[in-house]
Amino acid sequence: MKNAVEVIQREQLKEKPTESLGFGQHFTDYMFVMDYSVDKGWHNAVIQPYQNIEISPSAQVLHYGQAVFEGMKAYRQGESIVLFRPEENFKRMNRSNARLNIPEVDGECLLEALKQLVALEKDWIPEGEGESLYIRPFVIATEPHLGVHAALEYKFMIILSPVGAYYGDEQLMPTRIYVEDEYVRAVRGGVGFAKAAGNYAASLAAQTRASELGYQQVLWLDGVEQRYIEEVGSMNIFFVIDGKVVTPELNGSILPGITRKSIIQLAEHLGYEVEERRISIEEVLDSEHISEIFGTGTAAVLSPVGFIKYKEREIKISGGQTGSITQHLYDQYTGIQAGTIPDPFGWRVEVPVTDKV
Amino acid sequence: MKNAVEVIQREQLKEKPTESLGFGQHFTDYMFVMDYSVDKGWHNAVIQPYQNIEISPSAQVLHYGQAVFEGMKAYRQGESIVLFRPEENFKRMNRSNARLNIPEVDGECLLEALKQLVALEKDWIPEGEGESLYIRPFVIATEPHLGVHAALEYKFMIILSPVGAYYGDEQLMPTRIYVEDEYVRAVRGGVGFAKAAGNYAASLAAQTRASELGYQQVLWLDGVEQRYIEEVGSMNIFFVIDGKVVTPELNGSILPGITRKSIIQLAEHLGYEVEERRISIEEVLDSEHISEIFGTGTAAVLSPVGFIKYKEREIKISGGQTGSITQHLYDQYTGIQAGTIPDPFGWRVEVPVTDKV
Ligand SMILES: Cc1ncc(COP(=O)(O)O)c(C=O)c1O
Ligand SMILES: Cc1ncc(COP(=O)(O)O)c(C=O)c1O
Repeated sequence: MKNAVEVIQREQLKEKPTESLGFGQHFTDYMFVMDYSVDKGWHNAVIQPYQNIEISPSAQVLHYGQAVFEGMKAYRQGESIVLFRPEENFKRMNRSNARLNIPEVDGECLLEALKQLVALEKDWIPEGEGESLYIRPFVIATEPHLGVHAALEYKFMIILSPVGAYYGDEQLMPTRIYVEDEYVRAVRGGVGFAKAAGNYAASLAAQTRASELGYQQVLWLDGVEQRYIEEVGSMNIFFVIDGKVVTPELNGSILPGITRKSIIQLAEHLGYEVEERRISIEEVLDSEHISEIFGTGTAAVLSPVGFIKYKEREIKISGGQTGSITQHLYDQYTGIQAGTIPDPFGWRVEVPVTDKV
Repeated sequence: MKNAVEVIQREQLKEKPTESLGFGQHFTDYMFVMDYSVDKGWHNAVIQPYQNIEISPSAQVLHYGQAVFEGMKAYRQGESIVLFRPEENFKRMNRSNARLNIPEVDGECLLEALKQLVALEKDWIPEGEGESLYIRPFVIATEPHLGVHAALEYKFMIILSPVGAYYGDEQLMPTRIYVEDEYVRAVRGGVGFAKAAGNYAASLAAQTRASELGYQQVLWLDGVEQRYIEEVGSMNIFFVIDGKVVTPELNGSILPGITRKSIIQLAEHLGYEVEERRISIEEVLDSEHISEIFGTGTAAVLSPVGFIKYKEREIKISGGQTGSITQHLYDQYTGIQAGTIPDPFGWRVEVPVTDKV
């Protein structure tokens, strides 16, 4: 696979969407697919037209949820296409895979294949402010067998979706979050640190409740004491406490976000003191020392938190506005992503674009 | 759907398996399928040839694990076909569905459709001692959209698999179980009580470790204190303590087994004292009062436990043999299932068989 992956051409390219892009609703012309079997390992790597796949009704993914995914973005900047720390996504996928007994993938080869796919689909990368091409690698257990065991057959795919700006008008908009005190997302010893499919299905009920109550996101507490802050929906969470940047330490139940890791590095680089430690919900509610709160994730990048609701109480953060440290980190981070600020970390990975792919 | 479901005929029936059946490896000629959309509700109910289905690469089940399943059995007894408490399975499916934001199904209509399907496939029900037709209803989120939200489209299916006797030689065989003290299956507030796909993927790593250490099944402890007994692999667990039949109380993280519920009723009916309460691992290891342990589940029915391993200790139960109360319950229970003992509970549900279906 070090060589270019074979491309099966489409007869006709699709119309590009003209309405607002949203998230994960439109898909490009091509996708990358490869199969796994015990005797062949990963094989049959191919770039082929994006289309429905055939799957057995007894494929294990449909019954036992043996599936893992990743999410990252490609940005178009003039003539260049840039990925952001993509090797981290393949590393994390392999940690998720290991937890769910899914065979390891070759991250280096897949990164080459991904570059080829993205280059082929370069016209699908939207160029508007805040727009990008969302990249979804995922792996599913396809063995047609109802026994509960690690499957012997898998399919790995990469699909691409042009997505809109998270904040329509480009201003950071503080969100309202709801602290869930009944439902639990994950517990140490479980699969919370993995991007395992089942984690997301398990989160829907809380998300629905939060929405009904007028909050955009759920803030999860730990599964053991239901007291320590874990993360928010599909973001990690940061607090500015006495000017320090503080985030919950990775404990096995929190998803180790790549944005989280990058923001920690960036904040240190910018001279902030950073702490990774346990933070209880009482500390958050009762602290006059907390001046800002923000979430981090591939989709929203940085998302300021304006209001937090826990049981009967609702507190307002930074007067419901975006705090100055949040704004500073956001500007620096998106500047590095956009190439308008030098990248001292080597996070940007250019995708070579040739006319013929 | 109160009327017979439309049947799309196959051109050719498959060969029935002649080798040993195993579990969930062979599938019959037909399956039941219906679709859900927000505007139509459940619709398109049809019995059609068992074959691969088409699914979008962005179908939510493949990414977010929004899927629920059930498992039950049909037995062939001379000219009649019998299901065992099938209405309980559809009720449990609806409890699972509710937890995962999947729309409710109509259990009564589905039971009629199931009877029609099983009658159509009656020649697939194996007649050997301990053999049966395993029935797998399941529902998957099919909406092609990568947003994390309750899907707007689903597919519900029932597939059928002839399965072999759990104990090859018909004798009950005590199993060796491994008490998992690191991995956690579920926690209160999570989805442990639901037959949610993701629970099973999350359990694979522990099952693999147990197998490598020479144990057949994992005994799960609670997710909060990792101290209280929850359940075993795909079985609930019972202890005979001072002659009483004791099982962990349902607490939100344990799967409420239909065999568990039935064994409780049967044991009471037979005059045993039954207790549902918390049982700690210390109580199990240090008790001279525990004379028998057995698991209960659709696949194995009743499975005596001979050995329990926890950290450095291994204890032997009933001298590694099947205890007398276990044997008594097993004989009575399988007798009711087989129709050789009267069924005072109305558990057996006959499937009307006509020549023309
Ligand atoms: C549960 C969860 N937490 C946090 C994150 C943020 O991770 P990242 O920064 O890698 O996008 C995500 C999204 O990927 C997530 O799904
Ligand atoms: C996790 C789990 N526990 C217990 C059981 C036993 O339930 P039942 O008796 O309904 O088969 C099952 C199997 O269905 C299961 O998957």
